[in-house]
Amino acid sequence: MQENALPVFEGPVCPVPLHHGEEIVIGHGSGGRMTHELIQQVFAPAFTSPEVASSNDSAAVGLPQSAGLRGKLSISTDSHIVSPLFFPGGDIGRLAVCGTVNDVSMSGATPLYLTAGFILEEGFPVSTLQRVVDSMQTAAQEAGIKVIAGDTKVVEKGKADGLFINTAGIGWIPEGREIGGQLACPGDIVLVSGPMGAHGIAVLAARGELGFETEIQSDVAPLNHLIQELLLAAPHTHVLRDPTRGGLATTLNEIAGQSQVGIWIDEKSIPVLPAVRAASEMLGFDPLYIANEGKLIVVVPQEEASAAMLAMRNNPYGGQTVQIGRIEPSPVGRVLLHTLVGGTRILDMLSGEMLPRIC
Amino acid sequence: MQENALPVFEGPVCPVPLHHGEEIVIGHGSGGRMTHELIQQVFAPAFTSPEVASSNDSAAVGLPQSAGLRGKLSISTDSHIVSPLFFPGGDIGRLAVCGTVNDVSMSGATPLYLTAGFILEEGFPVSTLQRVVDSMQTAAQEAGIKVIAGDTKVVEKGKADGLFINTAGIGWIPEGREIGGQLACPGDIVLVSGPMGAHGIAVLAARGELGFETEIQSDVAPLNHLIQELLLAAPHTHVLRDPTRGGLATTLNEIAGQSQVGIWIDEKSIPVLPAVRAASEMLGFDPLYIANEGKLIVVVPQEEASAAMLAMRNNPYGGQTVQIGRIEPSPVGRVLLHTLVGGTRILDMLSGEMLPRIC
Repeated sequence: MQENALPVFEGPVCPVPLHHGEEIVIGHGSGGRMTHELIQQVFAPAFTSPEVASSNDSAAVGLPQSAGLRGKLSISTDSHIVSPLFFPGGDIGRLAVCGTVNDVSMSGATPLYLTAGFILEEGFPVSTLQRVVDSMQTAAQEAGIKVIAGDTKVVEKGKADGLFINTAGIGWIPEGREIGGQLACPGDIVLVSGPMGAHGIAVLAARGELGFETEIQSDVAPLNHLIQELLLAAPHTHVLRDPTRGGLATTLNEIAGQSQVGIWIDEKSIPVLPAVRAASEMLGFDPLYIANEGKLIVVVPQEEASAAMLAMRNNPYGGQTVQIGRIEPSPVGRVLLHTLVGGTRILDMLSGEMLPRIC
Repeated sequence: MQENALPVFEGPVCPVPLHHGEEIVIGHGSGGRMTHELIQQVFAPAFTSPEVASSNDSAAVGLPQSAGLRGKLSISTDSHIVSPLFFPGGDIGRLAVCGTVNDVSMSGATPLYLTAGFILEEGFPVSTLQRVVDSMQTAAQEAGIKVIAGDTKVVEKGKADGLFINTAGIGWIPEGREIGGQLACPGDIVLVSGPMGAHGIAVLAARGELGFETEIQSDVAPLNHLIQELLLAAPHTHVLRDPTRGGLATTLNEIAGQSQVGIWIDEKSIPVLPAVRAASEMLGFDPLYIANEGKLIVVVPQEEASAAMLAMRNNPYGGQTVQIGRIEPSPVGRVLLHTLVGGTRILDMLSGEMLPRIC
């Protein structure tokens, strides 16, 4: 499984094994440690292939030699189950398109085609479906991707929650382009494209679960143009990832595990909007574990870091790009945080479920 | 939308328009006329592209010229919501793999890669998920396709029905291969690979809805090897389709509409297992509208029809291939049935929902 495959863990981290007779719990879909355990123990042993083992957001695959393909295909899939369907800054349709466009793009691919599978609950208003479909098409046009194949299924009332959308995306990776979570090198610089946590808090607010008013908007956006501009300026970029489910902390842990490096992050440099920080503190959440849907993590060689940052800041979705840390040889597979108060602590992966059904 | 896109209707068929304020009903997912109306009125206007307009089981698309691709990609998606998850002859996992392998293959493509998105209901047994995943891998191995990317989401108890699986498939269509629902020509022969309706009846039996015992097994199977052998023997094959939701009658109507031809079918030549016929009669169903998951409709020029039939009969999934009819210039967009009693009647598209949630 690409979307949330199992990075290598080292050190004292001991995943709790799944037991026979165990049931699926919400945490298995969090994108954090429980999801990784489910993948390691159920999916990975069945679907063994080098592409699955690579643990990136998308699979990079070739075609038979007689097809003449130069480069590779980038393929990814995602199911979208957000509640509510509409939230400040976006909706399930925009989320479904952007999520898969972004996953395909994280390999450096140009996303080209999208499939869309709709699971509808009996009684769902056709006019609401129309709004969602129109929003998908608007997002697809912004990204420059075509929706080329689809499927519609209807289940009896009470057997689904209004609307679920699955998208799969296909893109093309030009020959010679090598980008992946396993390629971070000591000395590389870590950038993020803007403030963390807005999507998760916006969805919670839309549910009325905050208990107070907020104007936070989801950041849901297609990042493919931002990435193309970045790669022109910094062609030796090593890693691209979008910190969705599990947030920045989980994604950095995945990179540290895949690349077998230590990632040292400076807490005070991590951008978080004041309203997101305030909401997180009231709810007892850490913004570093909250999902984003339009943010980019970049790991780039130091000599290209300035060019990368400049290029990203010139794109509307990267205007607030900052450096948040650096890759070190150790501790292997770990993320270390220089805290605001001057200490250093291990920043671990999300272990259960913090924010259900937000992506 | 490819899977169930809108063929052209002519003559007295008047689709009922969707009204503002209308709600989704089970019939919108049947694969019959209501599904086509939903696609025509909601999806098609948004997702306009030549690939979507082609109304085939899969989209045939190219890559940027610099990718060097010879031929095309075949891309398809399908969501699987069958209840119960296990039934005689198969399960949701085998169905999910075979359904998409078959859709990709209907363009004459070699299916290569599969994505899998799992939506799990809280409380679903991990051991059952393991059985389904193992069944998927067995089917993928039989088809020779790799599962390369996946996604797992969990919804609260009561917000889904155990397990839904979405699959998307990618295949390669060699240069020069032209197969599609719009290519049937007057004079062509129509073949089917075996008896109709077993899958739908097997699922109903597994639900205990028949009220009597039956040994009918689902026909769910990957058809890609059968198709490759057929195309070696009959390289000028015009149309390949698998009669899934909506059954043989709906699929033939789609072909008649896309190709703007008449399809004349001989009822007595349509193979139906005695047990399927008996169950259908007791339930008031017509086997020609019941879903199949391992059957192939072939439209082939008369001069290659014998070679096609011979090749198909040599494959385990085509052992009972027969000729059921012929393409005529008229009536355009219609399927005519020479009935058992010697008359002729229009065989229409499925208009509502007959068998919910069987594929």
